[in-house]
Amino acid sequence: MSESAELLLPTGFRAAAVKAGIKPSGGLDLTVLVSERDCSAAGTFTTNRVAAAPVHWDRSILPSGKIRGVVINSGNANAATGQVGLDNARSTAAGAAAILGCRTDQILVASTGVIGHQLPMPKVEAGLRLALDGLSDQVDAFHEASRAIMTTDTRPKVVSLRREVGGRVVTLLGLAKGAAMIGPNMATMLGFLLTDAKVDPENLRSMLKSSVEDSFNCISVEGHMSTNDTVLALANGASGVEDDAILSEMIHEACVTLARMIPEDGEGATHLITIDVEGASTREDARAIAKSVAESALVKTAIHGADPNWGRIVSAAGYAGVAFEEEDLSLWLNGIPLYRDGAPLPFDDALASANLRDHRDTHIRLILNHGGASVRFWTCDLTAEYIRLNADYTT
Amino acid sequence: MSESAELLLPTGFRAAAVKAGIKPSGGLDLTVLVSERDCSAAGTFTTNRVAAAPVHWDRSILPSGKIRGVVINSGNANAATGQVGLDNARSTAAGAAAILGCRTDQILVASTGVIGHQLPMPKVEAGLRLALDGLSDQVDAFHEASRAIMTTDTRPKVVSLRREVGGRVVTLLGLAKGAAMIGPNMATMLGFLLTDAKVDPENLRSMLKSSVEDSFNCISVEGHMSTNDTVLALANGASGVEDDAILSEMIHEACVTLARMIPEDGEGATHLITIDVEGASTREDARAIAKSVAESALVKTAIHGADPNWGRIVSAAGYAGVAFEEEDLSLWLNGIPLYRDGAPLPFDDALASANLRDHRDTHIRLILNHGGASVRFWTCDLTAEYIRLNADYTT
Repeated sequence: MSESAELLLPTGFRAAAVKAGIKPSGGLDLTVLVSERDCSAAGTFTTNRVAAAPVHWDRSILPSGKIRGVVINSGNANAATGQVGLDNARSTAAGAAAILGCRTDQILVASTGVIGHQLPMPKVEAGLRLALDGLSDQVDAFHEASRAIMTTDTRPKVVSLRREVGGRVVTLLGLAKGAAMIGPNMATMLGFLLTDAKVDPENLRSMLKSSVEDSFNCISVEGHMSTNDTVLALANGASGVEDDAILSEMIHEACVTLARMIPEDGEGATHLITIDVEGASTREDARAIAKSVAESALVKTAIHGADPNWGRIVSAAGYAGVAFEEEDLSLWLNGIPLYRDGAPLPFDDALASANLRDHRDTHIRLILNHGGASVRFWTCDLTAEYIRLNADYTT
Repeated sequence: MSESAELLLPTGFRAAAVKAGIKPSGGLDLTVLVSERDCSAAGTFTTNRVAAAPVHWDRSILPSGKIRGVVINSGNANAATGQVGLDNARSTAAGAAAILGCRTDQILVASTGVIGHQLPMPKVEAGLRLALDGLSDQVDAFHEASRAIMTTDTRPKVVSLRREVGGRVVTLLGLAKGAAMIGPNMATMLGFLLTDAKVDPENLRSMLKSSVEDSFNCISVEGHMSTNDTVLALANGASGVEDDAILSEMIHEACVTLARMIPEDGEGATHLITIDVEGASTREDARAIAKSVAESALVKTAIHGADPNWGRIVSAAGYAGVAFEEEDLSLWLNGIPLYRDGAPLPFDDALASANLRDHRDTHIRLILNHGGASVRFWTCDLTAEYIRLNADYTT
């Protein structure tokens, strides 16, 4: 359903994206997502101590409830920008609120781009007027929004889901961006979920939190946690459908679908790597092992080179901070058993290498002998193209 | 003093290195370091749960004391090799002990190379006989040893120190290897310190531990903690000098000198990056921040590209798990102030970029406003050459 013209839209939302001149490229860089009526809203944010100004702003206003919309700029993170940055985040919300005729604390803000530069506020303000003039409830406007929030992404990341409940339909639209500076611990990118479901804000918060735990917190590109990571959910109730079980399942599916798209579009990536860790004592243990494997440059380069150098995988598991004995560990790579109960298994090197080379999707399965907890984690390989892209980003 | 013909040798040690046929390249791959008399010995090892067989062996015999020598093979890690691997590590020690006429538990073993393959024992045994036949107390033998323990290193890493104490001389020779799979937490490579100082084993242990803490535990190439990391110190007392203060200072200097050589020779590296974190509440906090910055692929690629994209540095500090407010943080890059008390400072981009491009040594200085603890940490940049080297290592 994603990235297609068949995008399903929730009732009562409008979008617009404009070229405000924030990106040096001159591309689309200012996006507005607005609901006709007040929304229940929830957010999850980076745990980085150097949190961006919009993260501080959103955290401060979310408890007040009754959100009307989000202003998103790309090309500038408004992070590490001190008091001026905080003032600019607030001014952005105030500017949108004035035009929409709502309170400033009903407007969320999100930013992504280079850290440490002040937002060019005259451009933001002019862009805001233009965007709010052009709000539309048509599919094209949301497609444009999904492209306008991108930075180094090579493709937009969208998902839409619809369910029938008692003869009425409820719809959820999700947009996300992210291709680098992706290191999990709370949401690790920008994500926006818009739905016309009716839901209590407290329940929405807990649904979002648990879904983010299984999705945006289980991905990594290079393990660098951003200052700006934000996932926002807005529910305006316009469908009249109030069914928490259904909504929870939709939010979960949307989050997992969008999260997986991020390492799939990881900068320079040639492999999407899915890591299943099973048989752990706790989910935290399973996640720590998966994250350690996902963030090993040696694992990522081996997979890029179609090299079944599995010792790098078990050694990365070994320094995850989880206590285990070697005899407790077994490993499969793309279904091939390589290591069982702490001892290496014979395998055909050439065949395993060809298998890695021929499949863009790589599957690492680690089984511990400890318990019933498991996790699924996604990452990508590390390539010379990633280096090229990141050795020259600001200058 | 390092890597020169002027290498100073401690009395009573002999060395030999041979081509045993373990490395596919056919290079030197089996090294023996032997003392004429029993040594006080100490070791620090990887904390990886998948510890190599020689690590298990060394840990088991070190408490018995009276070490006579070390057998080191390169080209095969003897890690993730199960019971067969443990038997092979012990057999290697037994083989050397039989020829030297000492007990098996007086011979330490160290391995480095690919994980998950069994040692070719007939080759190891033949190589051992050849090496023990050729033991020499001449400088050339120790130079050969320093080359024989290398894997992807581009150059040997040696240091020697001599002090006069009460009319007598005491000498320390250090050898190390390592260029990747370097992620600190306990020694992160192979290192061997040989000295003719006289010292109580318990004191030697505590000297080695504290020096490793400031040296091999403060370096990183890509943050992947090896299964084989080992630093061994052997003191045979042949100089007759027993002065713990002097020996402690020599061990510290040797460890720091050798440790720094590792990221300096990091695979594909073009910059040695020294990270000073000052003003932290505790040394653990300072080290956590330094490690987070050192292991950020985004920081490492920016420096490779001579890009003064300092936001990546402060954001990496922000996710180190240390609680601080942005206003507590300031940053200098190669002496240029970029961020003070949580706000960006104006600077000349072109000048800062030229500065990074023109200096192989890069200096990151982060100051917190918390206390008096500090740490110095070393890493290297991340380049396309690192990817090339690691995308095709076993196959």
